[in-house]
This record gives sequence, C-alpha cells and structure tokens, in this order.
Amino acid sequence: MSDSHVTLTLDEVYDLSCRVLEHNGMSNAHARAIANVITQGQRDECQSHGVYRLLICVHTLRNGKLDPKAEPTIKHVSSGIVAVDAHYANSLLSFETGLPLLVAKARENGIAAMAINNCFHFSALWPEVEAIASEGLVGIAMTPSHSWVAPAGGKKPVFGTNPIAFSWPRPNANPFVFDFATSAIARGDIELHARQNKPIPADWALNQSGNPTTDAQAALKGAMQTFGGHKGSALAAMIELLSGALIGDLTSAQSLAFDAGAGATPCHGELILAFDPKVFLGDAYATSLQQAEALFESITEQGARLPSQRRYDARERSVLHGVKVPKALFQDILQLLE
Amino acid sequence: MSDSHVTLTLDEVYDLSCRVLEHNGMSNAHARAIANVITQGQRDECQSHGVYRLLICVHTLRNGKLDPKAEPTIKHVSSGIVAVDAHYANSLLSFETGLPLLVAKARENGIAAMAINNCFHFSALWPEVEAIASEGLVGIAMTPSHSWVAPAGGKKPVFGTNPIAFSWPRPNANPFVFDFATSAIARGDIELHARQNKPIPADWALNQSGNPTTDAQAALKGAMQTFGGHKGSALAAMIELLSGALIGDLTSAQSLAFDAGAGATPCHGELILAFDPKVFLGDAYATSLQQAEALFESITEQGARLPSQRRYDARERSVLHGVKVPKALFQDILQLLE
Repeated sequence: MSDSHVTLTLDEVYDLSCRVLEHNGMSNAHARAIANVITQGQRDECQSHGVYRLLICVHTLRNGKLDPKAEPTIKHVSSGIVAVDAHYANSLLSFETGLPLLVAKARENGIAAMAINNCFHFSALWPEVEAIASEGLVGIAMTPSHSWVAPAGGKKPVFGTNPIAFSWPRPNANPFVFDFATSAIARGDIELHARQNKPIPADWALNQSGNPTTDAQAALKGAMQTFGGHKGSALAAMIELLSGALIGDLTSAQSLAFDAGAGATPCHGELILAFDPKVFLGDAYATSLQQAEALFESITEQGARLPSQRRYDARERSVLHGVKVPKALFQDILQLLE
Repeated sequence: MSDSHVTLTLDEVYDLSCRVLEHNGMSNAHARAIANVITQGQRDECQSHGVYRLLICVHTLRNGKLDPKAEPTIKHVSSGIVAVDAHYANSLLSFETGLPLLVAKARENGIAAMAINNCFHFSALWPEVEAIASEGLVGIAMTPSHSWVAPAGGKKPVFGTNPIAFSWPRPNANPFVFDFATSAIARGDIELHARQNKPIPADWALNQSGNPTTDAQAALKGAMQTFGGHKGSALAAMIELLSGALIGDLTSAQSLAFDAGAGATPCHGELILAFDPKVFLGDAYATSLQQAEALFESITEQGARLPSQRRYDARERSVLHGVKVPKALFQDILQLLE
C-alpha cells in the first residue's frame, strides 16, 4: 500500500464490489454479474470502468427507477434471435443469462442476435464481446445512451454516445477487440475539463448556438459532436436504429426523457450479434484464422498497435501484482458500506 | 442537348450500358445486372458510379482476370447463411441471384447473411442495401478493396478503402441509407488532385516516410489514412475480417496481390446482412417504424440532412428530366462500341 493508493488483488476487488452492491440492495445474482465486470475494468486499468463505477451504480440504485432484484426472462423470438427482458434491472445479468442461448443459436445458424430490453446500462461493451470471442465466435455489440450528441450538420442533441464493440477470436492470444463511442469523446472527459476549468478541443462539442466551442461548460449545455464527421454521425444513427427501434426499445432521446433528471445510468436496450466462423467456413476455418493473424501481423510489424493492446498489457500486470486504487476513491467506496 | 453535355433518359443509359458491356464480351445476364446499377448511379448523380464506370468495367474486362460469362452458383450454408460463388465474374449478378434467398432466410430467422465469393467489384453498396430495404428489411453490406490505407499509428498500407453501407426501410419514403468508405477520402479524389497538381488536406494520406502530406503524388506512393483516426482504423480492420477472413475470401492486401498490377477493379468477397424487424418485433413493428421516423424528424427539423438526401433529390430530377453526361465522356463510351 503506497501513501496515495491502496493495492488490491482482483479477488479483493470482486468481493468489495459484491459487498457494496448487496449492501445497497442488489440481489446476489446482480451483484455478482456487476462485480465481475467491474473487476475486469479495474484489472485492465480502465479507471472509469473499474471500482469508480460502484459510486455510479449506487447513485442509480438510490435515485433511479432501477429494480435491483428483477430476474431476467428469456424469449426465443426465432431460431436466430433471443430476447432477454431485464425488467428494469441492470443489463449484465441479462447478458450472462442470454449468452449461452446466443452462442447455441450462432453455432446452429452461423449468425444470431440477442436483444436485451429494458435494462439499465453502465458498463463497457468489451467484456461482452470478449465473452463471445472466448466461445470461438465473432461478436458485435451496441447500445444507445442518453441524447447528448448532435447529428452532423445540426446543433441539437439527438444521439447518445452510442458505443459499438467488435471481437474476433484468436488462437492462443487475446481476441482482437475494439470498443468505442461514436461521440468524439466520452462525456466524462468533457465533465472533467469543466471541473478543472480547462479548454477542450474544438471538435468535441458545440455551444448552445451550434458553434464549435472550446469551453467545456458551454459544451455541456450545448451538444457533443460525433467522431469522424458525417460518417460517425451516420454510424450513431445506425446504432439508434439497430439497438433502439429494431429491438423495440428506447432511442437515446427517449432514454434521457425516461431518466427525468434522476442522473441515473441510461435505461434502454442492447443488441448483440454473434457469428460462428466454423459454420461460414467449415473445414477452411483454420486457414481463415491464420489469414486474420497475417492481417494483425501486417499492422503490428509496422509499429502500429492493435486496439485493446493497452488493456491486455494492463491485464498482465494486474493479474501478477494486483490493482492500485486511489485512497480517496477507496474511502468513498467504503462509505457506501455504512 | 447542350453544347458540353448529352442528355439521356434512364432507359437510354441502361440500353447504352448493356450494349457496351455485351459488345465487350459480357453475357447478357451480367450486362443487365451491371447496367442496372450504373443507371442507378447516373440517375442519382453519383458521377463516378454512373456511365463513367463503363470505362473501368471494360478496362477490367480487357486487362484483368474477370470471367465475363460465369454464372453464379448458390450454396445454402445454413438456415441463416447463403453463399454465392461468383466464379471470378462481377459481383452484381451474384447479388441479384442470392438476394431472394437472403430475404427468405431473414424472414424465417430474423437475421441472415449472404457471402459473395470470388467476385470482381466496382459498384457502390447503396443500391444493394436499398434493394434490401425495398423488401422491408434492414440491410448492411461491406467489402474490402485494394490495400491502400494505413492503420492508425502505422505508415504502410494494410486496409482497403473498405466501404460499409446500411439501410433502414421507411414507410412511404426513400429508405434511410448510408454508404461510406472507411478511408478518409476516395482514392479517386487523390488521383484527381494529383492530375491537377492540387494540394490535398493533411489528414487524407501519408508520404512514404509515414508523415502526413499535402502532396497528392506523394500520397499515392505512400498510404491513405482512414477517417476518424483509430476508430475508423478499427472499423476498417473489422471489414477486412468480416468480409474477408469470415467468409473465406481475400483481404485487401491479398486482393491487390491477385491483381498483379493489372489495374482491374478489386476481386474479393462481400458480406451482406439482413434483419427482419417483423421477426424481431411482431405486432410492435409498426410502432417501431414510427419511432424511427421520430428520430429522422429530430435530425431534419434542426436543418441537418439525412445521409443520401442529395442522391434522392437528384433521383427525382433525373426521373423527370433525364441525366446529363459530359460530351467527352459520352464519346469515350461510344468508342467502346467500335
């Protein structure tokens, strides 16, 4: 333990997370599903998706419309689709519950979809697509969020930060995984700049008049921008449609309205796709995985990094040495046990 | 007919395209499939995807490894996947041939995939996702191309311009459609700047040393960049994996090697996904389409444009008044009939 940090093993992170969540009213099943993902976030040094999220989870528990104990129910929509109703609990237990069915359908049909409906969502998508890759499948996941982001050419918020994640299984290696927001930056980064009174880059957000701004306060009152101009904006719209309208759940604007100022994590749906390369390719499967390895090699041999490499490096460190949590944050978390 | 342009009806564009292609050795079936898409491109005033493409098609016919008469063969891979082998002919007849099967599988399973293998490809993807939307389905299409684009953080070409297209069906309106390259810009735009000795924006490409360049000639010898930094680069990799390795076809680097300097259009695979909202949603389908309309309204009511709106405006004009083709281009095309 250093002066400014507490060092915890991954088991300690998991146990602490479970205790905090159960103490605040989560069922054991929900607490375990959430603690699992928070431990993964802390392990991979995604600080905003580690134990810090316990504060946000408990805030949502205390202030939102979240049901901390609802058990997910399953509907086999078709041979290619499973839908999981979270009944206004957190998304993660629904994902865990539906995953074996998604995997079975993908292995049968080659391609399958899982819709999670009516779920509160706070977590990164990479743990979910990694779980799909660990089954030897290719995964895609996406969700809306709260409408903070303007469409290209516009000035009023319509889209959420709308993340999309992808995974490709690799033999004897961590999967190829990316997970990014279609907003130019995370909303938390703008909030951080606002708290510190620091200017933001001009392509992050617009002020209320619809002009690019470097003033973080003005940005929070205005609208965030998507990454990549009209192309990022098009992707953000696609994510609203696929993980909102297509699965009969809320768009980011509807989700923000549902929150009604509570400041809870967004409640909406999630769409997850799985592809089984063995069904697509039959015997050619192994050759094709090697072809993908050659692609990765052509990226890394020139000194470019694969997405998620930084996380995987952190993971190795954390498994060996545990994780460091700022002492102030640790104290804030312990207070949630009082 | 003006001095500098020839005005043609859409039927005339289609007939001219068929004649040029058949005269140069295409089977009638391939000529009709290609002429159909070239007519759509000219109609929507996508100049580089209109009759101009006849020059490129004939160049590929005369210089590449394309089979101008091969008939596509179908393989029902699974209840969710159809694979069409183009046998080194152009992609479009394969798409037409496989589409009814993709639609049937999507209506049965809710989600389905079509892989087209061993196809030469020159066309935009929006006509294909529009065809899917006209069946009331949601469509996604993607292909690799030739490896001209560096990964984020690298300097050597790995990815193609790797386009992705998406469609959402709208009641009584043109579908919501986008179709964009994951490169910062089309390669043709850099070539145009090089011919005109004009500088290019610094985020389009790198020179051979791996530094951003405004010199179009240096860019063509170096590497193009993706749009949207590391996020666009991640998407470009996903497209290599899904429409290359997953379907047992070439990556952009392998496709460029296969071309062996012929300068033909790329030969590789294509992945097309279709989702049936009626299977996902049952009776809630109509409500969900209205929810999507509200999303579109929230974009357009603030003066932002939906993707493809410019094309749809052009389409209206062209259906009424025909299309204008530059006289010099028209003469070049007529020479292909000699």
